[in-house]
Amino acid sequence: MFDKVLIANRGEVAVRVARACRELGVRSVAVYSTRDRDSAVVRMADEAVHIGPGQPARSYLNAAAVLQAADQTGAEAIHPGYGFLSESPDFAEACEAAGITLIGPPARVMSVLGDKTSARALMRRAGLELLPGSTDALDVEEALELADRIGYPVIIKASAGGGGRGMAVVRERDRFVDDFRRTRATAQAVFGDGRLYVEKYLEHARHVEVQVLCDTRGRAIHLGERDCSVQRRHQKLIEESPAPDLRPGLAERMGRSAVAGAVAAGYVGAGTFEFLVSPEGEHYFMEVNCRIQVEHPVTEMVTGVDLVQQQIRIAAGLPLELAQDDVRPRGVSIECRINAEDPAAGFAPTPGLIERFVPAGGPFVRVDTHVHAGYTVPPDYDSLLAKLVVWAPDRDAAIARMRRALAEFRVDGARVRTTGQFLDAVLAHPKFAAAAHSTALVDELLAARPHR
Amino acid sequence: MFDKVLIANRGEVAVRVARACRELGVRSVAVYSTRDRDSAVVRMADEAVHIGPGQPARSYLNAAAVLQAADQTGAEAIHPGYGFLSESPDFAEACEAAGITLIGPPARVMSVLGDKTSARALMRRAGLELLPGSTDALDVEEALELADRIGYPVIIKASAGGGGRGMAVVRERDRFVDDFRRTRATAQAVFGDGRLYVEKYLEHARHVEVQVLCDTRGRAIHLGERDCSVQRRHQKLIEESPAPDLRPGLAERMGRSAVAGAVAAGYVGAGTFEFLVSPEGEHYFMEVNCRIQVEHPVTEMVTGVDLVQQQIRIAAGLPLELAQDDVRPRGVSIECRINAEDPAAGFAPTPGLIERFVPAGGPFVRVDTHVHAGYTVPPDYDSLLAKLVVWAPDRDAAIARMRRALAEFRVDGARVRTTGQFLDAVLAHPKFAAAAHSTALVDELLAARPHR
Repeated sequence: MFDKVLIANRGEVAVRVARACRELGVRSVAVYSTRDRDSAVVRMADEAVHIGPGQPARSYLNAAAVLQAADQTGAEAIHPGYGFLSESPDFAEACEAAGITLIGPPARVMSVLGDKTSARALMRRAGLELLPGSTDALDVEEALELADRIGYPVIIKASAGGGGRGMAVVRERDRFVDDFRRTRATAQAVFGDGRLYVEKYLEHARHVEVQVLCDTRGRAIHLGERDCSVQRRHQKLIEESPAPDLRPGLAERMGRSAVAGAVAAGYVGAGTFEFLVSPEGEHYFMEVNCRIQVEHPVTEMVTGVDLVQQQIRIAAGLPLELAQDDVRPRGVSIECRINAEDPAAGFAPTPGLIERFVPAGGPFVRVDTHVHAGYTVPPDYDSLLAKLVVWAPDRDAAIARMRRALAEFRVDGARVRTTGQFLDAVLAHPKFAAAAHSTALVDELLAARPHR
Repeated sequence: MFDKVLIANRGEVAVRVARACRELGVRSVAVYSTRDRDSAVVRMADEAVHIGPGQPARSYLNAAAVLQAADQTGAEAIHPGYGFLSESPDFAEACEAAGITLIGPPARVMSVLGDKTSARALMRRAGLELLPGSTDALDVEEALELADRIGYPVIIKASAGGGGRGMAVVRERDRFVDDFRRTRATAQAVFGDGRLYVEKYLEHARHVEVQVLCDTRGRAIHLGERDCSVQRRHQKLIEESPAPDLRPGLAERMGRSAVAGAVAAGYVGAGTFEFLVSPEGEHYFMEVNCRIQVEHPVTEMVTGVDLVQQQIRIAAGLPLELAQDDVRPRGVSIECRINAEDPAAGFAPTPGLIERFVPAGGPFVRVDTHVHAGYTVPPDYDSLLAKLVVWAPDRDAAIARMRRALAEFRVDGARVRTTGQFLDAVLAHPKFAAAAHSTALVDELLAARPHR
């Protein structure tokens, strides 16, 4: 096992990794920007190194500064969390060159899976079903021809896209050319890369993803699936495990697909295979996330497996402790992402001082947060304040428990607003309760409440 | 199911019951003393009724005031929590007379099990093994004769005793008469009842208790056992489930003993059978607690069963949802009781203002508390501030997780001290880690650190 691990992230996930290190008896090194000088992980880690000013590009995205901090503190490994450098093949290569273990898959695997075209080709060879379409960059004529062939609706996506930006759903042929050009302009502006591709768009689809763990000795298992269909603008808001109301055998088939894909890719560490599930029960491979996910706790709650500890163990070269048959999910877990955003103002971020902070507690409630009373939410980073996670024997009880926990959860500040009560309205929605929702639920709910 | 339940308690257990009510869709009524006017449960419950001044006898122990509050709010049932009126057959009878359901066993069962002599006789008939001795009140000559017969060491206990007071362990015959007289004087002074009895005292024994659930239709199950051997002056400090390192088959035998005893008693609701386990692996019945226990969360964490919800369901006449085979414990859970006491000052209570309160969080950590920043710990009640509970796949990981959680947990105030760091020292003790401890561990630890 490592003696010392550097945490190349901030916010709740940095705290999450520091906790895993502490429980494993591994010393931890936090890195922090000027803005995060007083953050929780700086206090929790064994050491802390200042790596730059508040702007992400000059601190948490600054690979040289992170590697310098690792060198200076003698850290043998780096946990990148999610976001920032976590899926950068360049950073993974730089770590390899510096003789530091990056806790994640090797650079070459990250590179293949990070490119949509090579990932699709690899997964097709591994036997996974893909959405009709192509991830090759297309010009407008090629794209229109493809759209005509696979049938509307289709989705236009930026090759360099991510995080729900640079996408357009086209339902009618007449709109295609205009939408393609508009999306290309956006992609060029946002990502500096105007390449686009086209896929079939599934109406009423569910976003379901499978967690895998693979060790360095070629063993691979899955830990069941998560439903992340409650999204706003392709950003997940509520996640749960297991996925509710799947057709018989589908969860098992998806698990096997993910393991086959992971083995084909030579995957190492914790990874997530994202699928779209059609109302007919087909599952289509979308992408692999080469990192721990924000929503990993729901898998932990139903399996009892600490995924971050497993990541660290695997990176240290230890064999998987679990065989597939040892993974026995129990009950239902739901996570709500509490963001510092104002639903009444189009979900605008609301940075500022938190004067009063009361996390929920009690039976089967877990709170992952870096926030406390007196903390100032900085404007520089994403707006995730806390993850509220519950477990219960069944889904109805889990929803009731989450609504109880949301009622307890309080963040007060002159400017800070949160998404908590909005999420409660989602949980209370009859479609969610009946597990009859799709990724369109939040839009439907917002459309029905235009005053919000 | 009930429409409305009154919570006849305060502190963390009142919060615990309010949470269970909320999750079941049952309205809750808090009662509070003047001292608890600003307490968490007053905010969390749907209604709140002031029932008297801070002194327990004039509020939480005032049966008439509690029943009046139930009548006034139309509550159909009363959850008594633990302590206060929870094991009073008189209160149970008063509830029955008033047509209000007390969430607990019937008055007659409480009465039989609350009396040590009748409880022992009943359990002997049910086939449970008892410690050598007698719970009949004895005079000094009878007691000495009994002690000589069963052999030293023996323990002298007050018939009216409880909570660890009115007890004396006698290791040598020469000390017996003096110790008996001194204990009688204490019992007379503390309980107004000088009656004493004598039992064999087991050296190096473990305190292990079994959780049972019995419905009104005669079904009874157990939910495994808890080890509560870490005690100071017979007050539990740390509890865990399952009990570590029991001889093969012993846990199953204890579970069967408890269920047999519960059936023989006509028990209804959640109850706890306390046993002493000798180093040789014998288990001796001590007593039944006719209420939810402080340490119930460790059972919840390993079984996934919400015991307080089960209590309410059973009292409403619903059948047990679980058969014995449905109870499948997983992993290990540990609870630390964080008390507002100063270990450096003989564990003297430290009431006062809490200026900063940071509960632990993250994976598999549960905090049950009524405390928040700005809360003033009153001097009138017990010193329990919070219960810190963890779960992990195995005991070593659970200890590591608890030590991580204790390191995070912060209660700051000018006067308030807590037992948190003391409990960490217990967890770090090689005997605890090896599960080689007995109820004597804390005394050994304190003796080795006289400066504390």
